[in-house]
Amino acid sequence: MPELASDSVGVVAPQTAHFDDPLALACGKTLPSYTLVYETYGTLNAEGTNAVLICHALSGHHHAAGRHHEDDRKPGWWDAHIGPGKSIDTNRFFVVSLNNLGGCHGSTGPLSINPDTGRLWGPDFPMMTVSDWVHSQARLADRLGIERFAAVVGGSLGGMQVMQWALDYPERIAHAAVIAATPRLSAQNIAFNEVARQAIRSDPDFHDGWYGEHDTLPRRGLKLARMVGHITYLSEAAMGSKFGRDLRQDLGYGYDVEFQVESYLRHQGDTFSESFDANTYLLMTKALDYFDPAAPHGGDLAAALAPAKCPFLVVSFSTDWRFPPWRSRELVDALVRADKPVSYANIDSPHGHDAFLLPEPRYQAVFAGFMARVARDQQLEGS
Amino acid sequence: MPELASDSVGVVAPQTAHFDDPLALACGKTLPSYTLVYETYGTLNAEGTNAVLICHALSGHHHAAGRHHEDDRKPGWWDAHIGPGKSIDTNRFFVVSLNNLGGCHGSTGPLSINPDTGRLWGPDFPMMTVSDWVHSQARLADRLGIERFAAVVGGSLGGMQVMQWALDYPERIAHAAVIAATPRLSAQNIAFNEVARQAIRSDPDFHDGWYGEHDTLPRRGLKLARMVGHITYLSEAAMGSKFGRDLRQDLGYGYDVEFQVESYLRHQGDTFSESFDANTYLLMTKALDYFDPAAPHGGDLAAALAPAKCPFLVVSFSTDWRFPPWRSRELVDALVRADKPVSYANIDSPHGHDAFLLPEPRYQAVFAGFMARVARDQQLEGS
Repeated sequence: MPELASDSVGVVAPQTAHFDDPLALACGKTLPSYTLVYETYGTLNAEGTNAVLICHALSGHHHAAGRHHEDDRKPGWWDAHIGPGKSIDTNRFFVVSLNNLGGCHGSTGPLSINPDTGRLWGPDFPMMTVSDWVHSQARLADRLGIERFAAVVGGSLGGMQVMQWALDYPERIAHAAVIAATPRLSAQNIAFNEVARQAIRSDPDFHDGWYGEHDTLPRRGLKLARMVGHITYLSEAAMGSKFGRDLRQDLGYGYDVEFQVESYLRHQGDTFSESFDANTYLLMTKALDYFDPAAPHGGDLAAALAPAKCPFLVVSFSTDWRFPPWRSRELVDALVRADKPVSYANIDSPHGHDAFLLPEPRYQAVFAGFMARVARDQQLEGS
Repeated sequence: MPELASDSVGVVAPQTAHFDDPLALACGKTLPSYTLVYETYGTLNAEGTNAVLICHALSGHHHAAGRHHEDDRKPGWWDAHIGPGKSIDTNRFFVVSLNNLGGCHGSTGPLSINPDTGRLWGPDFPMMTVSDWVHSQARLADRLGIERFAAVVGGSLGGMQVMQWALDYPERIAHAAVIAATPRLSAQNIAFNEVARQAIRSDPDFHDGWYGEHDTLPRRGLKLARMVGHITYLSEAAMGSKFGRDLRQDLGYGYDVEFQVESYLRHQGDTFSESFDANTYLLMTKALDYFDPAAPHGGDLAAALAPAKCPFLVVSFSTDWRFPPWRSRELVDALVRADKPVSYANIDSPHGHDAFLLPEPRYQAVFAGFMARVARDQQLEGS
């Protein structure tokens, strides 16, 4: 078997935590009981001061670092940034990464059994908001004996959860890292999400979300949703340099794959449509659309941020056109206006929104520098 | 009945021209005979020197200006720019506007009868290229007694036809106006087209393109194609200022329309899916993808442009992200390198790609100025 790299957290195993105390949700419904699946990397210190929470993005999950077995082909989705000596240094920090409620990777969601009916939750699973997720994450922290996170960290939809943590639990978050995110979706962002939803919901195999009971999957819809999503994750330049107008075969003047980029997108869509739950995808896009902490404050983001008490790191990427740099600067400006400590870095990267997943050197340096400050502030050993 | 504005071409009627001379196509097939539907505005002068050809975009057609009856609700798609005293001044010019082959507005296309089989052409209609369209347009010019166009003009896919005119018939085009176009699609452009095609082709009502024989329409797919297309026609800023995060109703935490932008997109998609032919949409997107005059010259656009003999006007729009200004500058740079006369204007507009259809004052001034030069060069009366 191949040896795991020395900066890997190694072989990890998911754990589960079951909760029987009902969770009241923003939509007005209550989840009577639920399970969260999560992973941890590193060791919680005796004082409980070194915990870092990782919040995942639209199609993410709890498996953020390491491998599930020694010859696991792929590591966790943020393995570039979590491990011994990496930005989130597991020699110092105790890292917690969970699958959010409504997800399809083990936490309670549309693929779970609804205790009231004995059938799958399916489309009856209540709509989740970023705030709901943060509340459920706080309960997981309670369970793990974490009074206060040294840092809460996330990219994209994960970054929205970080913002919400700073507002809903200001005493329980010592530092916030908001990466490639936005304080609210634009009309164009919502429009792309709506195309994805219409693709899924208009697929005849969707059956109003009860595809499980019809022994089918809305593969066509989910494939289209992923294809259009994928275009927004990559920069135009990255797509251009990766595929350009390269042909996969001679022009056939038909509808088989001709250009490489077509082949790539179809493959991405096909793979995703077999592995991700459509109801989960729908509710995750809605959580994105709904997120808007400034709304109850008449759109004044600085007013919304008043409760926050922790220092922020905000990171954007130059070619991210899903959540462009100016969207991060909106947050930075509001934090400054609200008199909150904030460091901001706009990282030059050709990789668009996906850059937040990748190990770009300046990004790593900025991120590691911020996490070293977290360690110092928390008076962690060796920092 | 309401009076038509004095700068309208008034009530117009489509005409048809039938061609029995076979048209050899780039795909290797031959169209044995075909009909083109077209409109004309203004009067061809005795010398035949004042004709202007209008080339349409992806979902366009021959009805570019005026109204089909006096209380027609909407004028032609380029009515802002064609009429007495407008940029393309019908007091001076004889304007020809046709529906391209493969279209669904009267010219021979998938909705026509295939003489070989007696059934609809449907998906058997041969794939068209920009070059094929230009050849068919030249034959229409022959029929109308137009030896040489004073100008060939078009936006988006229409602008590609203008470029092709300058290369394939350099003696027959005196001036070229290429608006909101690009000398070739990027990988991202192709990717969006591929999403649209997959949406249509994976719709169970598509029936491999034989929906006509199944008495149905691939409405779901065509709706999705239009929705995703529409996002790319509008700038993020325009969508933001038009809709922002405005709600159509209180949040329902469900999948009914909540945000205004959702309502708008669904409506656009529904309307289009009832009025446009899916096979036409597919082949038009392919014609876009295939267009790449530099390809036979190893990617050297200046070399490709060598045959051109006419002065060019190139216009781009600041917030067009479908074919951004730098894509127009690629063409301008290549024209300069190829030692061709070119005027270029990048117009500040919030309206994205759709700006080419709208009456922005500086755009109108630039366009009218160029057309006045056309009139002078052609020694037209009153100019």
